Amino acid sequence: MSLLENIRGPRDVKALDTEDLTELAEEIRHFLVHAVARTGGHLGPNLGVVELTIALHRAFDSPADRVLWDTGHQSYVHKLLTGRQDFSKLRGKGGLSGYPSREESEHDVIENSHASTVLGWADGLAKANQVLGRWNRHVVAVIGDGALTGGMAWEALNNIAAAKDRPLIVVVNDNERSYAPTIGGLADHLATLRTTDGYERFLSWGKDAVQSVPVLGRPLYESLHGAKKGFKDAFAPQGMFEDLGLKYLGPIDGHDIEAVESALRKAKRFHGPVLVHCRTEKGRGYQPALEDEADRFHTVGVMNPLTCEPLAPAAGRSWTSVFGDEMLRIGSERPDVVAITAAMLHPVGLTKFAAAYPDRVWDVGIAEQHAATSAAGLATGGLHPVFAVYATFLNRAFDQVLMDVALHKCGVTFVLDRAGVTGTDGPSHNGMWDMSILQVVPGLRIAAPRDADQLRAQLREALDVDDAPTVIRFPKETVGEPLPATAKIGGMDVIGGPGPEEDPADVLLVAVGTMAPVCLAAAELLTARGTSCTVLDPRWVKPVDEALPAFAARHRVVAVVEDNSRTGGVGSAVAQALRDAEVDVPVRTFGIPEQFLPHAKRGEVLADLGLTPAEIAGRISAALARKEVTEAAPAAAGRTSKARKENDA
Amino acid sequence: MSLLENIRGPRDVKALDTEDLTELAEEIRHFLVHAVARTGGHLGPNLGVVELTIALHRAFDSPADRVLWDTGHQSYVHKLLTGRQDFSKLRGKGGLSGYPSREESEHDVIENSHASTVLGWADGLAKANQVLGRWNRHVVAVIGDGALTGGMAWEALNNIAAAKDRPLIVVVNDNERSYAPTIGGLADHLATLRTTDGYERFLSWGKDAVQSVPVLGRPLYESLHGAKKGFKDAFAPQGMFEDLGLKYLGPIDGHDIEAVESALRKAKRFHGPVLVHCRTEKGRGYQPALEDEADRFHTVGVMNPLTCEPLAPAAGRSWTSVFGDEMLRIGSERPDVVAITAAMLHPVGLTKFAAAYPDRVWDVGIAEQHAATSAAGLATGGLHPVFAVYATFLNRAFDQVLMDVALHKCGVTFVLDRAGVTGTDGPSHNGMWDMSILQVVPGLRIAAPRDADQLRAQLREALDVDDAPTVIRFPKETVGEPLPATAKIGGMDVIGGPGPEEDPADVLLVAVGTMAPVCLAAAELLTARGTSCTVLDPRWVKPVDEALPAFAARHRVVAVVEDNSRTGGVGSAVAQALRDAEVDVPVRTFGIPEQFLPHAKRGEVLADLGLTPAEIAGRISAALARKEVTEAAPAAAGRTSKARKENDA
Repeated sequence: MSLLENIRGPRDVKALDTEDLTELAEEIRHFLVHAVARTGGHLGPNLGVVELTIALHRAFDSPADRVLWDTGHQSYVHKLLTGRQDFSKLRGKGGLSGYPSREESEHDVIENSHASTVLGWADGLAKANQVLGRWNRHVVAVIGDGALTGGMAWEALNNIAAAKDRPLIVVVNDNERSYAPTIGGLADHLATLRTTDGYERFLSWGKDAVQSVPVLGRPLYESLHGAKKGFKDAFAPQGMFEDLGLKYLGPIDGHDIEAVESALRKAKRFHGPVLVHCRTEKGRGYQPALEDEADRFHTVGVMNPLTCEPLAPAAGRSWTSVFGDEMLRIGSERPDVVAITAAMLHPVGLTKFAAAYPDRVWDVGIAEQHAATSAAGLATGGLHPVFAVYATFLNRAFDQVLMDVALHKCGVTFVLDRAGVTGTDGPSHNGMWDMSILQVVPGLRIAAPRDADQLRAQLREALDVDDAPTVIRFPKETVGEPLPATAKIGGMDVIGGPGPEEDPADVLLVAVGTMAPVCLAAAELLTARGTSCTVLDPRWVKPVDEALPAFAARHRVVAVVEDNSRTGGVGSAVAQALRDAEVDVPVRTFGIPEQFLPHAKRGEVLADLGLTPAEIAGRISAALARKEVTEAAPAAAGRTSKARKENDA
Repeated sequence: MSLLENIRGPRDVKALDTEDLTELAEEIRHFLVHAVARTGGHLGPNLGVVELTIALHRAFDSPADRVLWDTGHQSYVHKLLTGRQDFSKLRGKGGLSGYPSREESEHDVIENSHASTVLGWADGLAKANQVLGRWNRHVVAVIGDGALTGGMAWEALNNIAAAKDRPLIVVVNDNERSYAPTIGGLADHLATLRTTDGYERFLSWGKDAVQSVPVLGRPLYESLHGAKKGFKDAFAPQGMFEDLGLKYLGPIDGHDIEAVESALRKAKRFHGPVLVHCRTEKGRGYQPALEDEADRFHTVGVMNPLTCEPLAPAAGRSWTSVFGDEMLRIGSERPDVVAITAAMLHPVGLTKFAAAYPDRVWDVGIAEQHAATSAAGLATGGLHPVFAVYATFLNRAFDQVLMDVALHKCGVTFVLDRAGVTGTDGPSHNGMWDMSILQVVPGLRIAAPRDADQLRAQLREALDVDDAPTVIRFPKETVGEPLPATAKIGGMDVIGGPGPEEDPADVLLVAVGTMAPVCLAAAELLTARGTSCTVLDPRWVKPVDEALPAFAARHRVVAVVEDNSRTGGVGSAVAQALRDAEVDVPVRTFGIPEQFLPHAKRGEVLADLGLTPAEIAGRISAALARKEVTEAAPAAAGRTSKARKENDA
């Protein structure tokens, strides 16, 4: 591995002889397969951009030039070439991030894992260069063909193309996939471009062919050449990018380092907006990835790199698969139920449904806005759509949920996978805002199932609501043991401690979704200390059940535990419901503080946040103790602690 | 007005002889100018679609066919042709909505005033037709060229174009404007299309010209015709729409009823996705609108239709103009401050800044996502961008504010105009969610200035924050009298009642932004009844000032008043800050209940919501009285009222 080991930064990449580059690429591929097999991480995308990344760091001078990566999981090679070769704790606590990270390197700019953002960033950076007169600085943005289906990318292209004198280089990393194969008119168009062999060759052929016509040849050629774009299209469609006003270079073989480097240098000299179309192969050089049609090598767990056998013990059943199996059953019972995915059919669990009902499922591309608004159309047309999406990505469609779905009272069900803390993917993958921002949406209902049975039941309840949006949210990882209800209060389940017919407990613990087992364990600790505790699963956390305030009023303190932002979350909603009912029992809320979370395993993150049985029980005990003191010696109304602490009960 | 008066529905439009249609169009224009002059409303957009709307209702059978309007303010003519001709209370309480409304008519589908949504709706409705086998039903969506710059429109086009066998008709109403002239590569491309004279004529000309070449003519023609799209482009650019896979018909003169009707009937027969490109003129037929370059006739107030003089008394100074003037001053002091608008340069008050610093302002199109993310790029590039936008439209960019701006700690200032209740524009224009959903964004700061001086001061404070997003929000309408501070507590202003050095009042009224005068008046009423009251303007409502809990603890009740959703708003944030500090003084929150608001004047809406001095004072008095009762006879912990009431103190 002598070449790679000696790369300390882009300068060293530039210093290599051309003949050494292929070897460097091979070393990088070997490194990637073995390193990612040890830790898990994004494999396929990075294997696809080895040569592209090498060419980028040869053609440009990062960090003075800005090399930007869309959906930063394709930045591993970039990390290797910019001084970061210790992948031993990749995505783990204290290890390298799975995405670019400005803390790690001055060569990193965008840390966001959400797709389609890079062109907006690039436009802003290029405008700043222009305003500040940094004429010799370049901005180059790498975006996948899949990410071009996202609306932001279009908005940015429209702006980038408009400024003919503002240099900006867009590299389309065209591997014909989002996560799933890229869909839509754009994908068809890229396919057309891909099958051509480059404009220049066609141009010279066209010139010869037309000029060979004796009389009218030359004038006809001139006239056609005047209508330049049209003429080009006749022979080699440059297509919509040139229609918009972007110079188009391509298609380039993205695995030919010299070809890519040459195209990038040409693009640099153009001094205006240029699009370089590179064809690449996801998983390049790693046979198991190339052979796997379901693209399971997009992200891998810890595995044997040769056999691809997972090395981690088989985990239990995933929440995703419980949802997927239930959707399959529902599909046969309810012909009006249809499904939508935003380029993630398999990861969100719709594989079986799609196989059974291919005409009732749509992959809309990386296009959450369209998913939500077309769902409103589907509902208005008489169907009940289920949009299954990672919780973090629904943030993209907030306005559409509010304005298209809720305002129009459409029966659309949003199934939010990877809700709460997701862990290793870092700050932008956590689904920790859904139960806050969706609280404001009039009529919308949110369920946070605590176990597999509840997920199945609540999904069906959601599908019975035909005049309002419904949301079912559940976390990453495996579903636990069934947690049966011991009593009902309104629509809520008592899952531990005294029910409504018994003497009230000291503490009412409101356990949101997956926090149920944590709350039951906390209740056990409290009970052992002589503090009685009822654990209540509200099931539907929005709206707050009408029966909650009266039941809450029977307790000395109410604690709400959720794996969502404490700000404006379920705890806030419960507190407001109590205020509105003039129930002034103290409420304490446990959840995720108002911060972005660093990458680490899900359990590690939850422990760091104090969302463990011991911490929760301890803080509730402390709160009760303080309450006894003040009740014994009532002072002036109200009292203050010296400092506000996040998550302190 | 005999023709128009006899139109009770689309059937009557179809029954008219062709020669009567021009007269009908004239009657409609006359009606629009005089009706809108009486009530105020959207004039220019509706004058532009008179003929288009007539043609639509002749070519299609609404409501079986779905005729969909993007940005529904262009639906007045549609209303007139579908049985709604009483415009006397247009946009007023109890009168016709300024947008489509399903309550008004079965011919209306989309009520949303946010742009670019119609293609998503159309895609969903067309998919539903396909799934349910409604083969003879059509979906036709009218979208402006400006709205095509929005990302959702692109996401939808990509999906619509992909389904070659799913009929859907997109009508591009191309008037070269959003509110401002349409920008970007797309606008340039549409301009190219516009200058052509229709494909068919060019095709026949091209055929003749090429075939006249004796030897190679026919084969060359055939070969070029084989590469059909390219050949077409050589003579009459069909451009990116056909690149994506949409059949393109156009350009059509949108004021030629027969031409439009004929194109629409042709599109109906195509049984796949078709785009009909109609050129129209905003303000058509009304000279004052056509002559006004600033497009002030987009929306008008009550006016004399002949002289265009406003008939309502001149109102005071607008919040918008205070912002605009201060931006102009800041522009000369701070060369790093730049501005962004999403197609609304004039309405958001950036006209003067743009005139003085044309190279430091960008209109990005109807593209709020791009506005936010390119702002992150600008900030990272060393500038301080100000994105001025209506509060309701920032919902479109929630994910970008969170992930691009806040996660990356970018100093970007969002100036939210039309925050709170806007009134006559109806449910989708109210800016009543910003202070809720933005609460969750780590590091973000929100200011709600109470008067012009505060707006100026807080704008400058915001521009001094270079490592986090800042938000300044203010309402529609006019700014009131200056409300000086009488004391400071932390960063907050006491604006009425005892300050921190005096004996505490009974009530602490936290007045958010424009609710300050309302709270001062409420305090006066309470004082007259013997209840003392401190009115506190928190100035920065997020984060909650660290000094607030301790000061709050000195009062018997804390009331928070805001013109924002009660759910998760400033009241919730204050209550959480108090809980976290273990200050258990009862908190009562006044704001907008969790519902969509009907259209009416702003004052009428606020009164209906109980956000008036008398209501607020009355509810606080009642709460205090109940509190005295329970304090006199302390019962078991907690107590419940019989019913929860929104906004009840």
